[in-house]
Amino acid sequence: MEGKEEDVRLGANKFSERQPIGTAAQGSEDKDYKEPPPAPLFEPGELKSWSFYRAGIAEFMATFLFLYVTILTVMGVNNSPSKCATVGIQGIAWSFGGMIFALVYCTAGISGGHINPAVTFGLFLARKLSLTRAVFYIVMQCLGAICGAGVVKGFQSGLYMSSGGGANAVAAGYTKGDGLGAEIVGTFVLVYTVFSATDAKRNARDSHVPILAPLPIGFAVFLVHLATIPITGTGINPARSLGAAIIYNKSHNWADHWIFWVGPFIGAALAAVYHQVVIRAIPFKTKS
Amino acid sequence: MEGKEEDVRLGANKFSERQPIGTAAQGSEDKDYKEPPPAPLFEPGELKSWSFYRAGIAEFMATFLFLYVTILTVMGVNNSPSKCATVGIQGIAWSFGGMIFALVYCTAGISGGHINPAVTFGLFLARKLSLTRAVFYIVMQCLGAICGAGVVKGFQSGLYMSSGGGANAVAAGYTKGDGLGAEIVGTFVLVYTVFSATDAKRNARDSHVPILAPLPIGFAVFLVHLATIPITGTGINPARSLGAAIIYNKSHNWADHWIFWVGPFIGAALAAVYHQVVIRAIPFKTKS
Amino acid sequence: MEGKEEDVRLGANKFSERQPIGTAAQGSEDKDYKEPPPAPLFEPGELKSWSFYRAGIAEFMATFLFLYVTILTVMGVNNSPSKCATVGIQGIAWSFGGMIFALVYCTAGISGGHINPAVTFGLFLARKLSLTRAVFYIVMQCLGAICGAGVVKGFQSGLYMSSGGGANAVAAGYTKGDGLGAEIVGTFVLVYTVFSATDAKRNARDSHVPILAPLPIGFAVFLVHLATIPITGTGINPARSLGAAIIYNKSHNWADHWIFWVGPFIGAALAAVYHQVVIRAIPFKTKS
Amino acid sequence: MEGKEEDVRLGANKFSERQPIGTAAQGSEDKDYKEPPPAPLFEPGELKSWSFYRAGIAEFMATFLFLYVTILTVMGVNNSPSKCATVGIQGIAWSFGGMIFALVYCTAGISGGHINPAVTFGLFLARKLSLTRAVFYIVMQCLGAICGAGVVKGFQSGLYMSSGGGANAVAAGYTKGDGLGAEIVGTFVLVYTVFSATDAKRNARDSHVPILAPLPIGFAVFLVHLATIPITGTGINPARSLGAAIIYNKSHNWADHWIFWVGPFIGAALAAVYHQVVIRAIPFKTKS
Repeated sequence: MEGKEEDVRLGANKFSERQPIGTAAQGSEDKDYKEPPPAPLFEPGELKSWSFYRAGIAEFMATFLFLYVTILTVMGVNNSPSKCATVGIQGIAWSFGGMIFALVYCTAGISGGHINPAVTFGLFLARKLSLTRAVFYIVMQCLGAICGAGVVKGFQSGLYMSSGGGANAVAAGYTKGDGLGAEIVGTFVLVYTVFSATDAKRNARDSHVPILAPLPIGFAVFLVHLATIPITGTGINPARSLGAAIIYNKSHNWADHWIFWVGPFIGAALAAVYHQVVIRAIPFKTKS
Repeated sequence: MEGKEEDVRLGANKFSERQPIGTAAQGSEDKDYKEPPPAPLFEPGELKSWSFYRAGIAEFMATFLFLYVTILTVMGVNNSPSKCATVGIQGIAWSFGGMIFALVYCTAGISGGHINPAVTFGLFLARKLSLTRAVFYIVMQCLGAICGAGVVKGFQSGLYMSSGGGANAVAAGYTKGDGLGAEIVGTFVLVYTVFSATDAKRNARDSHVPILAPLPIGFAVFLVHLATIPITGTGINPARSLGAAIIYNKSHNWADHWIFWVGPFIGAALAAVYHQVVIRAIPFKTKS
Repeated sequence: MEGKEEDVRLGANKFSERQPIGTAAQGSEDKDYKEPPPAPLFEPGELKSWSFYRAGIAEFMATFLFLYVTILTVMGVNNSPSKCATVGIQGIAWSFGGMIFALVYCTAGISGGHINPAVTFGLFLARKLSLTRAVFYIVMQCLGAICGAGVVKGFQSGLYMSSGGGANAVAAGYTKGDGLGAEIVGTFVLVYTVFSATDAKRNARDSHVPILAPLPIGFAVFLVHLATIPITGTGINPARSLGAAIIYNKSHNWADHWIFWVGPFIGAALAAVYHQVVIRAIPFKTKS
Repeated sequence: MEGKEEDVRLGANKFSERQPIGTAAQGSEDKDYKEPPPAPLFEPGELKSWSFYRAGIAEFMATFLFLYVTILTVMGVNNSPSKCATVGIQGIAWSFGGMIFALVYCTAGISGGHINPAVTFGLFLARKLSLTRAVFYIVMQCLGAICGAGVVKGFQSGLYMSSGGGANAVAAGYTKGDGLGAEIVGTFVLVYTVFSATDAKRNARDSHVPILAPLPIGFAVFLVHLATIPITGTGINPARSLGAAIIYNKSHNWADHWIFWVGPFIGAALAAVYHQVVIRAIPFKTKS
């Protein structure tokens, strides 16, 4: 199949300058693109570095702020007798998507800006970070989410409990299978966008891509919320679901809680497979 | 007309660095801009390359996700007794426009990110891709759209059918001519934006343009939806219209269905002519 | 005052790389910035160039599409018995701002992307284009706007007339002075943003600025609409006001029509003076 | 701790090119990054430079336009009997966030684009500007805000007073402690985003960052408004709160007014500490 990639340059792609990908995957004629080596599973050295712990602190802080702002927005909408006198369901979707945009922008240079165990899991499957780091990030994200939801409850405990606490659950009229499917495809959209946005950076000509990457990632979160708030309240982020579930702590939400871990992790895994195998053809590349 | 193009540099253009265009079209003094040769109608070589099929898979996947998220958003709005308790019609417009933004961003480097037979048709008329590739893309887009709408129906078949299924039709009070006109001008706005966004890349100084191009393209889709949802539900994408029509499958929608192919294709053709002849003056260029 | 500009570099500016401005204005130590010479009032040569007429066609087409999409959006909102079942007033604001974003992006490289006589007037005052070109642009913008509003009326003439036709007028409860003031300050916001966005391009390091400039310009239009739709329906664009007024053609709107020329032209002139004299200090520069 | 920073490069960061930060903070192997020296407390020279006063004028003008557009938008929403016939609470949030986006974009090159005493205070604590300049900016911001709110009142004095005048106060059902907490965390989100956005500029490869920085900063303002409008009306900007309080001038608002100075200043100080100490490790750097 080597040497057949010239068609790529001839007109199929509106953006041929973002297309070293295909050639890189099959041949070895890539000049300005280098797939980094996979991260080791365990990297003892990073446990002794300050940047490792600083990255964890940044993940904690980002997830804390994410839950704080978004759950407070949900409370404002749910507490009001008229949705028209609030920012509305669309405002909730903007809150989730916009916070991811702003926080990925702020923390990308420190920790990679995951702010979501499903994103961490997907990037780990693609061997972009070590297992040590992945586990540390997920723990910090969950702690941050719990604290963020807790602060929101601290404002008005009664209203928090009567308004659902921003906790995820499958809505009446939908089966658990519907909820699981919605979480899988929703997380696929998010993690596929993350892979697409961060992959292009390897093209040396696109060194400004990382700066722009937070915008489509934030939009992906916004769009999935537009679609699936009526079904599950939209998780696609196990830390966000766990934080609200622990602080709200009602059995109805705990009964569905597995959906918001299993769904996002399956969706992230599918996105990693789709990107690495279909788009990047990395398994075939190592054989050449 | 040669040698008269200096006026361009003198102040008429706020962005004179994006202006090698005019000079390139009439004279031959273009230094950093080269119109690529037109794509051949049939290119047998590309049928043997993996990147050709990968591009088709990417178009399928993108159109699948496009229909899934957007039609699910439409269902959430239509199923609710009160529009105020949903993301609203504006949220639907964001969903269509935002998904195009995110998906063009993700797939531009793989397939060009068309996600729309009208875009593929317009770019084919401008000879940016071969007929083989255009037909392949359109087939994959339609298959993806059918699957996307099918999955949405799979969630709640009853509600899907009672809520209109996201299928396009001319609204009561409007003639078929109104609907056709709305589709023609709406698609013109979209495809004209696509041509404008992707054309500028030929300026060597603007190598970052492709990264930014998805944003105005997505906005164009959003804006056309704001304007024409009350008239036709807004097609401007035959794959989107076909996918919903097949899954919804009501005679009322099939009766209008031709509008959502003829309108977008006429609009795309007009945009291709406007851009290539009026803005680019390519027919006159080849004579010099 | 020479040699006192070093303070600029010391920390007052978060973005010191966008700051060759101050030094360029007072001293002559600017290395990578050159104020272009003012455009001549009459430039006979440009009347013989195709790019001059092509720019006029682009202004016509852009203003046509601007009125078509925005007025159609206004009709969709006004025709509905419940605002909640439409894209709402906020959707109208997005339509105006978003169209300016997309159209400036598309036409900036052809005509400068004015799409607004007030912008053309402001840039003319700053001597960025010749009088010939300014008059030609304004005529083409007005013709495009009339055609755009006309097509919208063509869809449903009765509803167009009963819904106000998207024409501007001072709302009940406000004086003509209020309306004039709202138009002046609103246009100031827009034209000041245009000057800021297009000025920075002269910094050689910021060659990508023109690509990003359409976004703040579009946002400025969106924001002014959020604020002043309740007062005047928001003009800040005499072509837009004229197009709707001619097609709607009611005496109530004609009585206020002068406000939508005088206000925007005063606002644009103030923005030109503020930017050229206060920010740029160009009058003082020529004396040195 | 030197020499342990290599782990940063291995996969933890999706955007490793924005990561000279960590290495710069602990070691001395930074090649393209240089922490500027702290600004002196008093810099007599700047009082004699035109750029100092021009920066003050730009801050005045930006804060004037900020209050004018946002408070006018608030009035439009509050004056209407039905929120559905307005741009809604979400539209108010867009107005505040969007104006900050546009104004930071416009004034960043002149004054740094603070438009907010809390931002000025936070940057002063990080020694990014002198005390002289910080005090001058804050005075100009407050004067601009008073004038902006005053012009809005000038339009319709009666409606202004009956609609709350856009003044901040703790809403019924919340304690003063809740309001203070909401202001602290909200300002933390904003000022942390400002630090993150402006810090990256020091990476020589990211010279376009300043152009993009206004977008996440504006979004941060938008997002905090989505969350805390129901609690305090959202201040996070003492000039904005002061301007509306002086023009509205009701004792209820004055009673809470300290919250809108103390909260933002605490939030800005925490963000400065978090960024400078945790993320940047600047105190440890000076010891090495």
